[in-house]
Amino acid sequence: MAAKLTPKGSRTRQRIVDTAAQLMFERGVVGTTLEEVKAAAGVSSSQLYHYFEDKPALVRAVIEQQTDAVVGTQEPVLARIDSIEGLRAWRDFVVDLERELECRGGCPIGSLGSQLAEVDPSSRSQVSASFVRWESALQGALRSMHEHGRLDPEADPDALSLALLAAVQGGLLLSQIHRSTRPLETALDTVLDHIATHTT
Amino acid sequence: MAAKLTPKGSRTRQRIVDTAAQLMFERGVVGTTLEEVKAAAGVSSSQLYHYFEDKPALVRAVIEQQTDAVVGTQEPVLARIDSIEGLRAWRDFVVDLERELECRGGCPIGSLGSQLAEVDPSSRSQVSASFVRWESALQGALRSMHEHGRLDPEADPDALSLALLAAVQGGLLLSQIHRSTRPLETALDTVLDHIATHTT
Repeated sequence: MAAKLTPKGSRTRQRIVDTAAQLMFERGVVGTTLEEVKAAAGVSSSQLYHYFEDKPALVRAVIEQQTDAVVGTQEPVLARIDSIEGLRAWRDFVVDLERELECRGGCPIGSLGSQLAEVDPSSRSQVSASFVRWESALQGALRSMHEHGRLDPEADPDALSLALLAAVQGGLLLSQIHRSTRPLETALDTVLDHIATHTT
Repeated sequence: MAAKLTPKGSRTRQRIVDTAAQLMFERGVVGTTLEEVKAAAGVSSSQLYHYFEDKPALVRAVIEQQTDAVVGTQEPVLARIDSIEGLRAWRDFVVDLERELECRGGCPIGSLGSQLAEVDPSSRSQVSASFVRWESALQGALRSMHEHGRLDPEADPDALSLALLAAVQGGLLLSQIHRSTRPLETALDTVLDHIATHTT
């Protein structure tokens, strides 16, 4: 459908998605009504329903948008990484971002997943695909280290990538709850220190 | 207030909290109304409001209940651990529980925290205290290993405990989303393997 939109229509649709993403990040999915999205985006009901037939359709667009914002931003960074130093620079990037946000909101994708997993199976599948995409980007970096002989032959780059993603998710949640970047830093540093013991 | 309850009153209050905890675990905090709690617990409005003046009061009781159920269950287990073998047995306990739940619901405390952190500051503080309690129980095990000389003197038991808790949280979230225990197992095993490299 996006392909058929005029430039103006495309901008309006994007404004609705951006507004909904921000509101859902601040007050949760169930806590955000279409009325509030309309008011905050400055669009009419007919405009909103022209682009999104119902709230689940808008939620799908928000998950897509947050995946591009979070994973899409990290993909080019991770694609260039082939060393433990590169992974530590990525760690700083993730921690700096959380510090700028003052530890508010947690991971946009993780938060959506946590809220939707048990009430909306198709959203759960969509978030699952987002996490697979993120994990693949991390795998790219770890496999590159492995192929360049910078990781022990016996090390499992896929397991280490998954552990790094879990450290990001658990670290972000604890940092959000405690309003401190320390959990995120400690979680990432522990897995990175472990990876470092496997570097050659 | 609980001290003043009759045995019957105490049971009624407990039934309301158990019902609310289950509904909030299944469909989220915002997705659970007091009407639904009343119907599912089989209590009248006057009974419900006798024990809980409003929904935030009920949410506080649910966080307390889930903290006792999750952390309270692990505390005696963790209090006896003073070796890496003990930590691996605790890991099996956590993974088995998630497998029994078919990876549904995620961590009851983490899910509540994720949903409430940005909309209810006092709930965020309460969940923060729950996580501190959990972290303390893990610290007990790691410090015991440290004191018994089973952990390198240079290892930091507090950082390792926090990394383990982050692995539990990130692992549970990814396991919930993917409906597989693999992320939880991989996240915990990676941090435990790292701890093992520091054992003496």
